[in-house]
Order: sequence, then structure tokens, then C-alpha cells
Amino acid sequence: MASKDVPPPSTFDDPVYRTGVVELLGLLAYGEISAWERLAEDATMAPDLTTKVEIVAMATAEFGHFVKLRDRLVELGEDPNAAMQEFAATFDRFHLQTTPSDWLEGLVKAYVGDGLAADFYREIAAYLDTDTRALVLDTLSGTGHSEFVIDAVRSAIKQNPRVGGRLALWGRRLMGEALSQAQMVVAERDALSTVLVGGVDHPGMDLAGIGRMFTRITEAHAARMDKLGLAA
Amino acid sequence: MASKDVPPPSTFDDPVYRTGVVELLGLLAYGEISAWERLAEDATMAPDLTTKVEIVAMATAEFGHFVKLRDRLVELGEDPNAAMQEFAATFDRFHLQTTPSDWLEGLVKAYVGDGLAADFYREIAAYLDTDTRALVLDTLSGTGHSEFVIDAVRSAIKQNPRVGGRLALWGRRLMGEALSQAQMVVAERDALSTVLVGGVDHPGMDLAGIGRMFTRITEAHAARMDKLGLAA
Repeated sequence: MASKDVPPPSTFDDPVYRTGVVELLGLLAYGEISAWERLAEDATMAPDLTTKVEIVAMATAEFGHFVKLRDRLVELGEDPNAAMQEFAATFDRFHLQTTPSDWLEGLVKAYVGDGLAADFYREIAAYLDTDTRALVLDTLSGTGHSEFVIDAVRSAIKQNPRVGGRLALWGRRLMGEALSQAQMVVAERDALSTVLVGGVDHPGMDLAGIGRMFTRITEAHAARMDKLGLAA
Repeated sequence: MASKDVPPPSTFDDPVYRTGVVELLGLLAYGEISAWERLAEDATMAPDLTTKVEIVAMATAEFGHFVKLRDRLVELGEDPNAAMQEFAATFDRFHLQTTPSDWLEGLVKAYVGDGLAADFYREIAAYLDTDTRALVLDTLSGTGHSEFVIDAVRSAIKQNPRVGGRLALWGRRLMGEALSQAQMVVAERDALSTVLVGGVDHPGMDLAGIGRMFTRITEAHAARMDKLGLAA
């Protein structure tokens, strides 16, 4: 957290802020359903029942987060499906560009993808009102079933070191696609990007702040790759 | 419930009964994971986001049931995955024989299959000790997200009455496969079938009782088909 980048909290009286928050919740909610579907595909590929159950548990946690985000949209008087539908194309594009070719690529995608998403959302959370921030941070917690991903990837590399090179490339591709989709979302969504970079009436991140944010996200990604035993 | 068929409650002191209960819990638990995977496939085929979310909610309820069954197996000192693995072939066979060719067949399978499974388990529950019975009955509740299946099937038949004939055949095929798999499970599992039909030291269902049970299950199936607007 870079506290010096954080402006005074915004409120729902500002219609642009309100729209930005609705967009953000729609984005997060669609992301959870999208993650659920991706994990469901991984579950069918799981090499054994223990791993399958672990993945189903991860998917179930994602759905729990989805329910909280949806309920908040309903509370705000919004149609959750309409808010989510706006981001269908973004996630579909991401998943089309990053379809895992095997079980290990699926695991790395779940681990790296969830980590990157969590980092982005945590950065954005700093610019939100207290309630929305608490909700966003809450949906980032409790998915921590990822120890078995680290074990699975490391033991696969141990058995065949060439796997490490292939998965390192894969991790870089995931990072590239995620940044590219995130950039498109920000470019297409004025209200959402105003929440982050500020508008006429409230300060947001300046260019240097955005630079520092990307440095933090890139460093966290490298740390995750390192945990998996992969070069970033 | 046919109360006159019900013997005095069995206890875990009887090793055959204990084995039968562990088999039953393993069967139910694998069934939940199997249902989860089937619903996950349906979710990817869902025609819109609202329906997709409904299906994911159904899958999440199945996983909640799974967790209770697994925890009970752990309490009994059993390895849940080992207990479940015993029934992998049964469910895999059933799903291989009844792969839906489209979205509507998937919906009918979820509705008819869950209903049949619930009927079987409810019949078996009558022969269980109080704790196990409560657990089994509990896992049968709360999946009632099926109103939308009825609506979807009925409106599809309204649009094209020929769909009704195809889905009625499909319902009969599901019933036939389910009975055939259930019969195989009972034939292969001495302890499990002893829970139901009784052993040397405790009475169970007699042949007439089994006949009445099948009548009840067949009638409930016909009632479900009728709700969907299909001939049984």
C-alpha cells in the first residue's frame, strides 16, 4: 500500500464514482463466475480425487465471493447480471488467449491469475469508500487453497526440468494477457478509471503513482513465479 | 415411508452395518462430486448469465453436502477418498451412458437424476441409525433450485412440441440406466445391501417391501416427468 497516493474517500453522492463502483463490482462478480468455470474445467482434468476435491473447494469459495458482490449490487439497486455482462467479452478474450494445454498450465494459470487479479483489486481498494473497500478485500481472502499448486508444479519440474522452461514462458504470457485486458478495461471505462486515476473534483493516482503500482504488481508476480520455481 | 418395513435401528457395533454405512457415505459423497462436475458442464452450456449463476448455485449446494458426508467419514476414522473411489466406476458408467446431447437433455438429467437419487437415498435412510439418517436426509435438502428447469423444459416444448417426445424418451433412458447402476451397486456390495435388505441378525426389507419401494420410486419418477410436461 502506498498511502501517499491515496486521496480522501469518495462517496456515492458523486455519480461518476457510483458508476465506477458499480462497474468495479460487475467486473469482480463476472471474474468470480469466470474463475469458477475455469476451475470447473481444471477439476475434470485433475489427476486424482483428492486434487479434484481441492479444486472444487476453490471454486466453491469463488462462488461465495460472487454472492457477496451480487448482493451488494442488488443493495445498490442495480441489476447484477447487467453489471456483469459488461465484462463478459473481457474475460472471454482473456480465457480464449490463455487456454491451458494441460493440467499444469491450468494450475499455473489459476495461481498466477488469481494472484494478479487480487493484486489489482487490492490496489484499487485503496481508492474506495470504506464499505466497498471492505467488501473488495473480503472477496480476496479465503481462496488460499494454493499450497498444493506450488507442490504440484515444483514436483513436476523436479521430475522433468524442461517443464520449468515451458511453464515460465506460460507465466509470462499470462502476465502479458492480463495487463493487456486490464489496460483495455481502463481505456473503455471512464467511470471505473476515474475511481482509480481521479477526476476533476478528486485527486487519484498520478502518473508516478501508476508507475509505482505497476512496479508493485510486477514484483509480486515475480515473487509468485519464484514460489512455483519458475523464472519470471 | 413404509413404516411397517422398518426394522429396529442398527448400531455401529455390528461390523457389517458399519461397513455398509461407510459404503453408503462413500457412494453419496462421490455422487455429490459427480453431480458437481455434471452441473459444471451444464453451466458452460447455459444460454444466459442468470441461468449460469443458478446452476453454479446448485453445484455449490452439492459441494456443501459433500463436505458434510466427507466430514462424517473422517469422524468414523475412514479415508473419505478411499471410500468414494469405490464408486467412481459406477458414476462414470452412468454418465458415459447418459451424456446429454444438448442443454435441455442436461437440464432433464439434472432434474430427473437428482430426484431419483434423492428417492433412493430417502428409502435407504429409513434403515439407518438416527445420526446417519439425519445426515443423509440433510444432504437431500436445499438443492431445490429446480423450478427453473420446469420452466425451461415446458417453454421449450411449447415452442416445439416434438421436443417433448425426444425428452420423454430421454427420461426413460435415464430411469433405466439409474436402475441398472443401482442394481449393480447392490449386487456388488454385500454390506451395503445388508443395510437395506437385512442380515442374519436383523430384519430388513422383504421381497414385498422391495417391490413396494420400486413402486414408490417409479411413481415419484412419473410425477416428476409429469411436472416437466413429459410422458413417463
